[in-house]
Amino acid sequence: MRFKFPLLAIGLEVAMIVLFAKFVRYETYPQVPQQGNITRPTAMDRFLPLYPLFQDVHVMIFVGFGFLMTFLKKYGFGGVGFNLLLAALGLQWGTLVQGLLHSWGQAFAIGIENMINADFSTATVLISLGAVLGKTSPIQMLIMTILEITVFAGNEYLVGNIFMASDIGASMTIHAFGAYFGLAVAGVLYRSGLRKGHWNEESVYHSDLFAMIGTIFLWVFWPSFNSAIAEPGDAQYRAIVNTYFSLAACVITAFALSSLVQHRGKLDMVHIQNATLAGGVAVGTCADMEIQPFASMVIGSAAGMVSVLGYKFLSPLLATKLRIQDTCGVHYLHGLPGVMGGLASIVAIAMNVPSKSSMAMQAAALGSSVGTAVAGGLITGLILRIPIWDQAPDEYCYDDAIYWKVPKHRELDDQFPALEDHTQQKPEV
Amino acid sequence: MRFKFPLLAIGLEVAMIVLFAKFVRYETYPQVPQQGNITRPTAMDRFLPLYPLFQDVHVMIFVGFGFLMTFLKKYGFGGVGFNLLLAALGLQWGTLVQGLLHSWGQAFAIGIENMINADFSTATVLISLGAVLGKTSPIQMLIMTILEITVFAGNEYLVGNIFMASDIGASMTIHAFGAYFGLAVAGVLYRSGLRKGHWNEESVYHSDLFAMIGTIFLWVFWPSFNSAIAEPGDAQYRAIVNTYFSLAACVITAFALSSLVQHRGKLDMVHIQNATLAGGVAVGTCADMEIQPFASMVIGSAAGMVSVLGYKFLSPLLATKLRIQDTCGVHYLHGLPGVMGGLASIVAIAMNVPSKSSMAMQAAALGSSVGTAVAGGLITGLILRIPIWDQAPDEYCYDDAIYWKVPKHRELDDQFPALEDHTQQKPEV
Amino acid sequence: MRFKFPLLAIGLEVAMIVLFAKFVRYETYPQVPQQGNITRPTAMDRFLPLYPLFQDVHVMIFVGFGFLMTFLKKYGFGGVGFNLLLAALGLQWGTLVQGLLHSWGQAFAIGIENMINADFSTATVLISLGAVLGKTSPIQMLIMTILEITVFAGNEYLVGNIFMASDIGASMTIHAFGAYFGLAVAGVLYRSGLRKGHWNEESVYHSDLFAMIGTIFLWVFWPSFNSAIAEPGDAQYRAIVNTYFSLAACVITAFALSSLVQHRGKLDMVHIQNATLAGGVAVGTCADMEIQPFASMVIGSAAGMVSVLGYKFLSPLLATKLRIQDTCGVHYLHGLPGVMGGLASIVAIAMNVPSKSSMAMQAAALGSSVGTAVAGGLITGLILRIPIWDQAPDEYCYDDAIYWKVPKHRELDDQFPALEDHTQQKPEV
Repeated sequence: MRFKFPLLAIGLEVAMIVLFAKFVRYETYPQVPQQGNITRPTAMDRFLPLYPLFQDVHVMIFVGFGFLMTFLKKYGFGGVGFNLLLAALGLQWGTLVQGLLHSWGQAFAIGIENMINADFSTATVLISLGAVLGKTSPIQMLIMTILEITVFAGNEYLVGNIFMASDIGASMTIHAFGAYFGLAVAGVLYRSGLRKGHWNEESVYHSDLFAMIGTIFLWVFWPSFNSAIAEPGDAQYRAIVNTYFSLAACVITAFALSSLVQHRGKLDMVHIQNATLAGGVAVGTCADMEIQPFASMVIGSAAGMVSVLGYKFLSPLLATKLRIQDTCGVHYLHGLPGVMGGLASIVAIAMNVPSKSSMAMQAAALGSSVGTAVAGGLITGLILRIPIWDQAPDEYCYDDAIYWKVPKHRELDDQFPALEDHTQQKPEV
Repeated sequence: MRFKFPLLAIGLEVAMIVLFAKFVRYETYPQVPQQGNITRPTAMDRFLPLYPLFQDVHVMIFVGFGFLMTFLKKYGFGGVGFNLLLAALGLQWGTLVQGLLHSWGQAFAIGIENMINADFSTATVLISLGAVLGKTSPIQMLIMTILEITVFAGNEYLVGNIFMASDIGASMTIHAFGAYFGLAVAGVLYRSGLRKGHWNEESVYHSDLFAMIGTIFLWVFWPSFNSAIAEPGDAQYRAIVNTYFSLAACVITAFALSSLVQHRGKLDMVHIQNATLAGGVAVGTCADMEIQPFASMVIGSAAGMVSVLGYKFLSPLLATKLRIQDTCGVHYLHGLPGVMGGLASIVAIAMNVPSKSSMAMQAAALGSSVGTAVAGGLITGLILRIPIWDQAPDEYCYDDAIYWKVPKHRELDDQFPALEDHTQQKPEV
Repeated sequence: MRFKFPLLAIGLEVAMIVLFAKFVRYETYPQVPQQGNITRPTAMDRFLPLYPLFQDVHVMIFVGFGFLMTFLKKYGFGGVGFNLLLAALGLQWGTLVQGLLHSWGQAFAIGIENMINADFSTATVLISLGAVLGKTSPIQMLIMTILEITVFAGNEYLVGNIFMASDIGASMTIHAFGAYFGLAVAGVLYRSGLRKGHWNEESVYHSDLFAMIGTIFLWVFWPSFNSAIAEPGDAQYRAIVNTYFSLAACVITAFALSSLVQHRGKLDMVHIQNATLAGGVAVGTCADMEIQPFASMVIGSAAGMVSVLGYKFLSPLLATKLRIQDTCGVHYLHGLPGVMGGLASIVAIAMNVPSKSSMAMQAAALGSSVGTAVAGGLITGLILRIPIWDQAPDEYCYDDAIYWKVPKHRELDDQFPALEDHTQQKPEV
């Protein structure tokens, strides 16, 4: 950590600045002579109406994902801090890669869609981060950011421009992609020393409440996520309405199933923090279609159930059989609900809901998203496994103390030890 | 809790889906031939300009109310979690009941006003929840949600469509209604075992800070609450401006009074968390009227004072004389300021501020709101008192451990006991 | 504190109400006869499009600044609470002073720009508060609010209306001004008893996470801060885009430098909470200019570095040599980056970026902002030093217990003492 991380970070930022200087411009409009009352349109005419939706997405990325990852008792700094770092890097790189892909390598202008898509591209990385949270070094995370967004942009181009598939809320291209990419990385980075769990891999009461800040902001602004880049007009309207009701239904079934599968019917915070959001993921692909509000609620209800059941029954299997340690359970918040979203769009088209896409193209988009995610994740995992990136030893996983200066609690140390285990001297990397 | 709660929740969600399938549609516009530059209006043309205000209200409901109720040291999961559950159910039921009332039982379309009003309708339940927080089971809360929103929609129809009264910020129909409904329920569910207080009914330092997240987001977005469904144009503008200044004035007097009534002049977090918001409630009814900014500040200042004085002096009286245990003190944040809002509108009309309503109709609206709230609350309370809804015994009130799996703190248990009292074995329902 | 504070607060609020009654009106438009399709413009026509940007700024002021100041382990109530108090008073006073200055003492109407500028004016006070946090009484803070906003409005009028300088994001008039005003006050109020630090002047793990709520919301909404009062159209568009990329770049260099300057390469939460925001400050002055996105990133990168280096190396010097105790380090988040913002605008104009201002006028604006801030801060500091304002003795600095009723933790007192030191009996003021 001593010099590798800062030098890599500064090197990446210098590269971003050079590439931005070469390729990124402001939007401008041709100077047409102004006649009568007709004024020249400005970049802001299209910008301002979507800006509130962009800001909702922006809050989701930085507040929502950030605080959702503060649930671990000793990894709150890393949760919200590394989320900020990766998203800040990712939005620069995402702007570039996506812009260059769509401009065929020419210089391009920044519109509100570019900013929304840049934020979107970071979401894939943050989802994958959830799978490896607490087990990777800052250097590994920076490398993953660059690699994942590159693969993501390629798959998104394939899905949107070659297959011409529908995926307005990005259930497939962001959620399923980010989850399976992260799971593949986690699989390659499997730590046998953690197969029986880790004493730090748990929450405390207050860390669960910090995580709820993330959950609630994600929940509230998800309709903006699913509609931000929808076609203006009725399609965008439907994307908001469908997501609103899907999420509401999802909350009810997530609570019900959480109680149903738990010992003595108690609710589990892991489910409430995560499964209540699955409805936003699962309705994403068909959010802008005319599926009717009740169908959104069916999708949301099913997603809430699948997500809770996944956390309860698949999660242990994945860890023991497939040797994939998924810290935040992104498979059940993003992976399975993302696949559900793709399948729901196929069912919708089969039921004659109007769409510009076809069942085959939707299936191709789903296959491509999962396939490139797994392939990209495996390659990324192998690169991250090279033992020069300052990985933490097993015993310092899920602990901020290895990468962060944590408060000393000085004279209170013996009275407030929950925050740092003072019985062992920790070597530092 | 074992099966009753999940089955009731799933049953309710199935009912919602069936009713939505039958009655709820998208907005559409007749396909008029497009001539020249005139484009067909879309649902989004009216939707998008109000969507940011809707999102502000949405944040208030889920973040604001949710975190405001995390102030209890051991009931944070329940505060923010049950808030999410009830609001998610309530917005579906509110959409239906309000939509059907206004369409005379016909199928209806979802516009932005429907979504804003659906969120509004949940606010009544969340206010009432504040009165019974920590003393009711999830099953009781679900039943209360359904019953209260039904009564609320009836009273709102009466006030708005029969009396044609003004109540743009819903001081009477939401705040006073929700408070007195909740107080009536709390009165019927009176627990004599808690008459001397409960060891869990208190905050710790950090839980008070979590509650401030709720307070501040409510405070910041209240101008949107009071203006979201105002008539576009000057009325909506005034609703924002008046609320902005009323809240600012309210903060000053709430701080001043809190210091004045406390031992040694110290500030009390209960007052700061709640009374600083009373100005938003009290200015609600006349928020869109031409009362001038200074009059908003008079209303806000008075509300801040009344609220603090209520918390300090009325609260103990209510508990001992009327046997109403009001956990969050909703009487002083919503009840009294809501009544003040109604009275302020009568005074304003008396002073010749232009209004479509009359003094008599405003008085009728106030009486109707308080009256139906008390009647509805009493009946709801009697239903909730039937001893089959898994109420917690007195000793497990205000404690998440009875309905939630709480972190075990394993090896830290003896060092960090504030979060769970480990000296007693808790039986579970 | 017994009567002085409440009486002063109530007196100030009465004064505000009287002045508002005399000077503040609603916006109205002349009643022109309506012909054809042309409808009379309403106050809302200009209001609603900017309202979401206003709300973003509003969240920054109350949530952002408020929670950023909760990092101290025992001063969280004061951090977010006094922030609310001062901002609520400040926005009323700011509305008046700025409105009267621009209307030459006539009655004036409230538009969206007035509300944005009122919120802006409170930012100066909240920045200064950061320098003296934990060391001043509520009475001193109220006095500082009134005095500082008065001086601020004078300087802003000078910069904007006399010098006609550019400072769209207010790097000079708010950030540098607020920081140097606060530092001057802190210098006059120097406490030699605290020259070796104070046992309460530190964070605990959870207080650092509360502070991150503030950081992230400030970071997310900063593009709105820098663009809210920009000229509609391309200038406003550029202000958003430039700030977005400047902040992203700033995060990368702040993380890199934090690791570089720390013992063993660990990240320091003080830097992450503050220096990641310096890019928003430093790009402020030229945010609306055509500097190109890559130049924003250069400015942001430099600001992140300067800020971290300042915290690390200048901070101890300032405390020991200049005897200025800067609690939150506002010099490195607002002071130096604010000056950088002014200098960047001079460089930009020197490089022929189009601007309505000139290099000389920008330099005059920078000099005026820093100069009036220091002069105003010194005078304010001298007034606050009069020993009648109930200052806390040194040993009760940075401790809520002196001005707030803090939770007693009753039976848990001996097990959870981190929140209140129970070994000493605290005298109260």
